[in-house]
Amino acid sequence: MTDHSFLLSDAAIDVLFREARTANTFTDEPVPAARVHEVFDVVKYGPTAMNNQPMRLLLVEQGPGRDRLVQHMGGSNAAKTATAPLVAVIAADTGFHDRMDQHFPIVDDARSFFLDEGARAEQAVYNTALQTGYFILGLRAAGLAAGPMGGFDRAGVDAEFFADTTWTSQLVVNIGHPGVDSWFDRLPRISTDDAIRAV
Amino acid sequence: MTDHSFLLSDAAIDVLFREARTANTFTDEPVPAARVHEVFDVVKYGPTAMNNQPMRLLLVEQGPGRDRLVQHMGGSNAAKTATAPLVAVIAADTGFHDRMDQHFPIVDDARSFFLDEGARAEQAVYNTALQTGYFILGLRAAGLAAGPMGGFDRAGVDAEFFADTTWTSQLVVNIGHPGVDSWFDRLPRISTDDAIRAV
Repeated sequence: MTDHSFLLSDAAIDVLFREARTANTFTDEPVPAARVHEVFDVVKYGPTAMNNQPMRLLLVEQGPGRDRLVQHMGGSNAAKTATAPLVAVIAADTGFHDRMDQHFPIVDDARSFFLDEGARAEQAVYNTALQTGYFILGLRAAGLAAGPMGGFDRAGVDAEFFADTTWTSQLVVNIGHPGVDSWFDRLPRISTDDAIRAV
Repeated sequence: MTDHSFLLSDAAIDVLFREARTANTFTDEPVPAARVHEVFDVVKYGPTAMNNQPMRLLLVEQGPGRDRLVQHMGGSNAAKTATAPLVAVIAADTGFHDRMDQHFPIVDDARSFFLDEGARAEQAVYNTALQTGYFILGLRAAGLAAGPMGGFDRAGVDAEFFADTTWTSQLVVNIGHPGVDSWFDRLPRISTDDAIRAV
C-alpha cells in the first residue's frame, strides 16, 4: 500500500473513499438538519468557477414533505427515500449570477459574465456537480452515510418544490446511518492504466 | 465551532475544506505522476451513476507536452499552467458506455442504457464533475495543492491531445505545493440561509 503518501490518516482515507459505500438502507437513528448545515458550512469552501457556488439544498424531513418527494422517485428508489432519516434534494441555482457581485467582487460586474441563459445553466449544473462531490465527501467526513440517486422525475420534483425559484433538481441524496444489508458488493473500478494517460 | 460533530479530525477538515485554497503559484518541489495515480486509486471509489466512472486524466509533465498545453490556456492561466510541477487535464469520456458491462455487471447489458449520444454526453460531463470534486479533495488529502481552471480553449485542447479518443476536456488542474503569494484573500461564501431550504 501507498497510504504513507497521504497527509490524512489511513483511517480518514478509509472513511472518505476506501470503505465508504452508497447506503441503501438506514437505521432509525435520526439525522437533525443541523448536521447537514454543519457539513454545508465546510464544503462551501470547495472551489467553483469564479466562486459561483450554485449548489442549493432542499432538506426533506420525515412527514408530509417526504411523501411529496417519494411520489417522484423512480422504481426501487422510492422505498429508500421513504425510509431515510433525512433526504437532501440537490439543486442547481440557474439564478446564481444574481449573487456574483457579492461572490466575486474582485472583478467589476461579474454578473455580466453569465447573461447567456444556456451557458449559465451549463455552469450551474457543472459547478453544482463539483460541489455535490464535495458534499458527499463532507457527509462521510461527518460520519454520515450518503445514498445519491439520479433516478427520479426531475420535472415533477421541480414543479413540486421549486416552482417559485430558479432552482433545478439534480440529485436526491438519502442521509443516515447504514442499516441492514445496506449495500451490494463493491462494483469494479476502472484501472489507472485505462483512466490516466501522460504526455 | 461544531467540529466535534465531524468524524474526521479538525485538522483533516482544515486540510480538505477550511484552510485549503486554490493555488496560483507553486514551489519547485516536483510532483511525481505516481502521486496522482495514488490519489486516483482512492478517489475512484467515489459514487457515480450506475458506476459509470467517466472521468479520465491526462497528466502533463514539464517539457514539450506542457508547451503544447499552455498555448491553449486563457489569459493569466497560461503562466500558472506553465510553472506548475504537474498538470492534470480532466476529461469526460463520452465512450464510457463501452465499459458499462464490466462496471455494472449486476444488470444485463448496462451499455444499452446509454445509447443516446446527447444523454450520454450529459452523463459523462455530470459524473466527471462529481468525480472531479472527489479528485480535488483527494489531492488535498495527499497534501497537494490544486489549482482548477476552466479558462482554456477546449476545442484546442481536444484537438491537441484527444483527437484519437472519446475524451473531451473539462478542467485543467495545476498540482503542486503552494509558492509565494499563492492565493487571493478568501472570497465570500453563500450563507446556509440562502443555500438551504427545508420542507
